[in-house]
Amino acid sequence: MAVYTHVDEDALADFLAHYDVGEVIAFKGIAEGVENSNFLLQTGRGSYILTLYEKRVNRDELPFFLGLMGHLAAKGLACPTPIAGDDGQALRELCGRPAALVSFLRGLSVMRPTPVHCAGVGRGMAEMHRAVADFGMRRENGLGLSGWHQLANACRDQAEAVRPGLMSIVDDELAWLDGAWPRNLPAGVIHADLFPDNVFFMHEQLTGLIDFYFACNDFLAYDLAIAMNAWCFEPDRSFNATKTRRLLAGYQAVRALEPAETAALPALARGAALRFLLTRLYDWVNQVEGALVRPKDPSEYVEKLLFHRRVKSPGEYGL
Amino acid sequence: MAVYTHVDEDALADFLAHYDVGEVIAFKGIAEGVENSNFLLQTGRGSYILTLYEKRVNRDELPFFLGLMGHLAAKGLACPTPIAGDDGQALRELCGRPAALVSFLRGLSVMRPTPVHCAGVGRGMAEMHRAVADFGMRRENGLGLSGWHQLANACRDQAEAVRPGLMSIVDDELAWLDGAWPRNLPAGVIHADLFPDNVFFMHEQLTGLIDFYFACNDFLAYDLAIAMNAWCFEPDRSFNATKTRRLLAGYQAVRALEPAETAALPALARGAALRFLLTRLYDWVNQVEGALVRPKDPSEYVEKLLFHRRVKSPGEYGL
Repeated sequence: MAVYTHVDEDALADFLAHYDVGEVIAFKGIAEGVENSNFLLQTGRGSYILTLYEKRVNRDELPFFLGLMGHLAAKGLACPTPIAGDDGQALRELCGRPAALVSFLRGLSVMRPTPVHCAGVGRGMAEMHRAVADFGMRRENGLGLSGWHQLANACRDQAEAVRPGLMSIVDDELAWLDGAWPRNLPAGVIHADLFPDNVFFMHEQLTGLIDFYFACNDFLAYDLAIAMNAWCFEPDRSFNATKTRRLLAGYQAVRALEPAETAALPALARGAALRFLLTRLYDWVNQVEGALVRPKDPSEYVEKLLFHRRVKSPGEYGL
Repeated sequence: MAVYTHVDEDALADFLAHYDVGEVIAFKGIAEGVENSNFLLQTGRGSYILTLYEKRVNRDELPFFLGLMGHLAAKGLACPTPIAGDDGQALRELCGRPAALVSFLRGLSVMRPTPVHCAGVGRGMAEMHRAVADFGMRRENGLGLSGWHQLANACRDQAEAVRPGLMSIVDDELAWLDGAWPRNLPAGVIHADLFPDNVFFMHEQLTGLIDFYFACNDFLAYDLAIAMNAWCFEPDRSFNATKTRRLLAGYQAVRALEPAETAALPALARGAALRFLLTRLYDWVNQVEGALVRPKDPSEYVEKLLFHRRVKSPGEYGL
């Protein structure tokens, strides 16, 4: 849950003086995203989301994220559209933080996705991958293979206390991925964090993708591997092959996977599981006293990783 | 900040099946109130607030709180109106908690109230006091003089570590209040927590009072004493006599204070300061590890109490 920064009425009025959004009717801190402070702003003209970027987001990267959202929205993708102020800028300062106003999206995120939702997110992701083809900016993925090595080393001394044997699972996996990670697949800007809380639906129709703050350049199929981990396991940690099939079919209805991508899927799924295992482990062993966000249990992703290790061929994912 | 309970899409749909509110457009946890989980619900028909009552609220008292809001709203006071479902009930169960849907109020709470805001809140409070005259339910104030003694005893062993000399200030004050607390003043249902975050304004006009979950039967002028403490001190803890005068004048424009109420104001202000000093102290020494709500520093109310102790007559409040 977010909302770290309190925005008072005077600061809000000064900020909104740059925008032609009409009279403020309501302004409420909302529990959306975990890295930033988000507010729902209602005005005589409609609803908006105001985001203040807190310290975990690198200021220099904001033009990439806002540029990406603007690019996608211009291509008709349902995602927040950054709104330019009277100076043509979407990014400005509020309460000492970079801040941006974006359009409001209808819909609810689903906590219990059905196969229909999985198909929808697959389709939406493929549409995003198609829409970024002519996006001119780049952002390296700091949470790729070499980033995972760094995270593993940073957690080494405390991992054993979290779960006995965890560090040897991580080290074995890194050694395997060093050899097995694909070198050359279709690449582009991926969302890289397309979890159920970042997708809105109405009546099982996708109405929006949000939270592009992990977006980066990487293999397109790696985005799908992240989504498989996020959408296709049940709360009891069992793997739902129907949901996976629908996710992949939804994706392929828009963009067909190449044979090399299909072949790489088991390795990508292992890498994706390890990525979330490691960032959750890192947050778990570096808990901040009094923080508002409770870290997520890394063991969920240990189970997912162990599942993918037992997968013998992409066919087991329904391909 | 609130939002403790996550409401999933199925639970929400089941709950809303009892209401004729149209199609759900958005549903977001909001940072409003500290005791309950609050959600902003937008539907085809408008905006609503959905509240789940968490464990600090006593279930048996909810009919009082909802009845009070319904009564006030029916009298034209700007406050959340509980919305009855198809069974005529406003209170039902959601995610294992009592829950109610209420109307949405326009406006923003102000963090830096001006004298104009203070006049508005005085007027709004007096209108509430007038509107409750024929409200048929009662709720005792558990945070009155005997409650303060209990809180003081519960904090006794840890108070010294919070602020040296604090317990002797509290004990001296309780001894004085035992003698000086008024016995007989006009009484009725008071808000008892009318802080700036519980009042909405648009263009300096009051648009709503919210958060009635401390409302109880007590002296009407005690409500004013609470508001004086909450609205009329500056962030540097200095006392703003202009704001106090406007608060009291706004109140008296609707309901004139009796001479006994005016005379009791210094004692009521001391009691009100002690009440918030003690509840903040209690929450401070009983911090819950990992809680989402950070306790407020009790020392702010020590300063306010010491200020009121130096007041020699009600005239110093501008009366």
